[in-house]
Amino acid sequence: MSYIIFCDLTNIGGNMNATNSRYVTPVMAARVALIQGASRGLGLEFCKHILKFKPPAVVIATCRNPEGASGLRDLGGEHPGRLTVLGLDVNREEEIRGAAERVRQNFGRLDLMVNCSAVLHPSGKGETSLRDVSAQGIISTFTTNTVGPLIMAKYFSPLLQKGGGGFGHQPQEKVKQHKGIIVNITAKVGSIGDNGLGGWYSYRMSKVALNMATKNLSIELGRNQSKVVCVSLHPGTVNTNLSRPYHKNVPPNKLFSPEHSVNCLMNIIDTLHMDKTGRAYSWDGAELPW
Amino acid sequence: MSYIIFCDLTNIGGNMNATNSRYVTPVMAARVALIQGASRGLGLEFCKHILKFKPPAVVIATCRNPEGASGLRDLGGEHPGRLTVLGLDVNREEEIRGAAERVRQNFGRLDLMVNCSAVLHPSGKGETSLRDVSAQGIISTFTTNTVGPLIMAKYFSPLLQKGGGGFGHQPQEKVKQHKGIIVNITAKVGSIGDNGLGGWYSYRMSKVALNMATKNLSIELGRNQSKVVCVSLHPGTVNTNLSRPYHKNVPPNKLFSPEHSVNCLMNIIDTLHMDKTGRAYSWDGAELPW
Ligand SMILES: NC(=O)c1ccc[n+]([C@@H]2O[C@H](COP(=O)([O-])OP(=O)(O)OC[C@H]3O[C@@H](n4cnc5c(N)ncnc54)[C@H](OP(=O)(O)O)[C@@H]3O)[C@@H](O)[C@H]2O)c1
Ligand SMILES: NC(=O)c1ccc[n+]([C@@H]2O[C@H](COP(=O)([O-])OP(=O)(O)OC[C@H]3O[C@@H](n4cnc5c(N)ncnc54)[C@H](OP(=O)(O)O)[C@@H]3O)[C@@H](O)[C@H]2O)c1
Repeated sequence: MSYIIFCDLTNIGGNMNATNSRYVTPVMAARVALIQGASRGLGLEFCKHILKFKPPAVVIATCRNPEGASGLRDLGGEHPGRLTVLGLDVNREEEIRGAAERVRQNFGRLDLMVNCSAVLHPSGKGETSLRDVSAQGIISTFTTNTVGPLIMAKYFSPLLQKGGGGFGHQPQEKVKQHKGIIVNITAKVGSIGDNGLGGWYSYRMSKVALNMATKNLSIELGRNQSKVVCVSLHPGTVNTNLSRPYHKNVPPNKLFSPEHSVNCLMNIIDTLHMDKTGRAYSWDGAELPW
Repeated sequence: MSYIIFCDLTNIGGNMNATNSRYVTPVMAARVALIQGASRGLGLEFCKHILKFKPPAVVIATCRNPEGASGLRDLGGEHPGRLTVLGLDVNREEEIRGAAERVRQNFGRLDLMVNCSAVLHPSGKGETSLRDVSAQGIISTFTTNTVGPLIMAKYFSPLLQKGGGGFGHQPQEKVKQHKGIIVNITAKVGSIGDNGLGGWYSYRMSKVALNMATKNLSIELGRNQSKVVCVSLHPGTVNTNLSRPYHKNVPPNKLFSPEHSVNCLMNIIDTLHMDKTGRAYSWDGAELPW
């Protein structure tokens, strides 16, 4: 696992030194957000948004290839001391485990985790019919889009359970308050009830299974006192690489900029609390059917 | 791919001899059902039921290890000329392709395909919490339970589109009639809307994704004149190997015998037509929420 740290860790709270923790005085720190799949597209935009609009929050950005992530590099320069980049291929459980251990050592907790990474299909295009369907294509898409986010939750949920509840909306009643939030970026085409067109087998199956993971997580992480809100969010159709082959079919006013989409999604995140856990919402706040 | 043929192929209609087809006179034959995952449990019971109650229908039973499938061997003896067993590991796309080619050559069409095979988890037990979740476990479960049935549909749907519509209920109006039926055996725990308990991550995710595959198939195979009805069916909690670790928690009157469950499911199959395609039904006929 490679990593680049653009921030001065001594400015961040938590236990910085796992091997020598007796000598560290944890200071109550700014809220901490982790964005997974942050090299470009919506993930990069989430990092930008939080650094710009939620100071002094700090951001941990994970991506496969930190050295090549020029957008993140620029962002680190603009916000000195507030961005940490960790190398993490979401298909590799060992890298996720290692990244979680590093975050535990350096930050001690998380307030928000957003799982962004996904592929439409290894070929870059969704299947239009059964002819295009292959076992390999389905499994590869599912591994990145569904297994990755769930394995992230496995290793990072203990840190979210130690969060300060810095994101979302906290009700007055202490027992109803949450410590952290997990957002899995889903897609409307992952709704079975809303599926009128068919096609895109791999992507649709991966996203509905991700929604099931969200639901299961909301139950497991909603049980005890250290509650974590878990939701799936649909960003709209957004002008990124993932949807590029289809942009010509989308009316211009329906093709969102990443900036607009993330604005909408952060508005939803700002209102999240335990009564909303285990659901899927669209960019406009409407609840999506399963 | 290994195969055992218990039936006399000359009794079965269709094109028996692909290499020499000019000399074959296809005769309109008994309806043909293919049961995938037929070595034991519900799959074996579907074979028994159709052979016993739907004569002169013939059954193609697929399983990983025909030599070891003693239940099928006995059944072939009881119903001479009506049971064909093909070796097929649903995790191997090439074996599925090969089996479809063999069925095409020997039968020329299919009226019903039931995808039965599944695992709860490679460990034999569903995950009770995130601690038990592993990337490998999820992917393996998904490959058998979800990818397998969809790849079956990829290779066998052309044969179902040539079916005689021998199963289900045919409406009077010709344009509404179907040629074949695909049944994917799902599970109620694969419903997100119905998920109140959590756990069983891999199995739940695999079954909701299977339901999405059913929905997509119903759209793609409902479009043209050669319509195929596609549904997901939940068999109840059934006394088989898959659910064995949990039998002690099930009240005896809620633990169905495979025979009872398949009776119920065949009653539903008997009523299927295009208005019911793309849905999930429970053993009692109730529609399941996604
Ligand atoms: N764009 C849309 O219209 C749209 C609509 C609905 C839902 N969504 C969802 O929105 C989310 C973000 O997508 P996007 O539109 O921003 O797409 P994008 O611009 O193509 O970005 C995809 C991101 O996923 C990362 N990624 C892919 N495989 C990875 C792996 N194995 N490990 C780690 N990272 C990996 C990519 O990293 P690399 O740079 O290393 O490749 C990249 O950062 C996805 O979940 C997508 O399904 C998008
Ligand atoms: N039992 C229940 O309570 C219950 C409840 C809800 C849903 N279901 C569903 O009902 C269906 C039938 O399950 P069951 O209860 O009959 O379970 P079972 O007795 O354990 O039978 C499972 C079958 O799947 C086959 N199989 C597993 N992996 C395979 C592979 N890679 N390739 C080909 N075949 C494979 C097995 O074949 P081998 O003999 O070669 O291992 C066996 O025939 C499943 O879809 C299950 O999810 C069952």
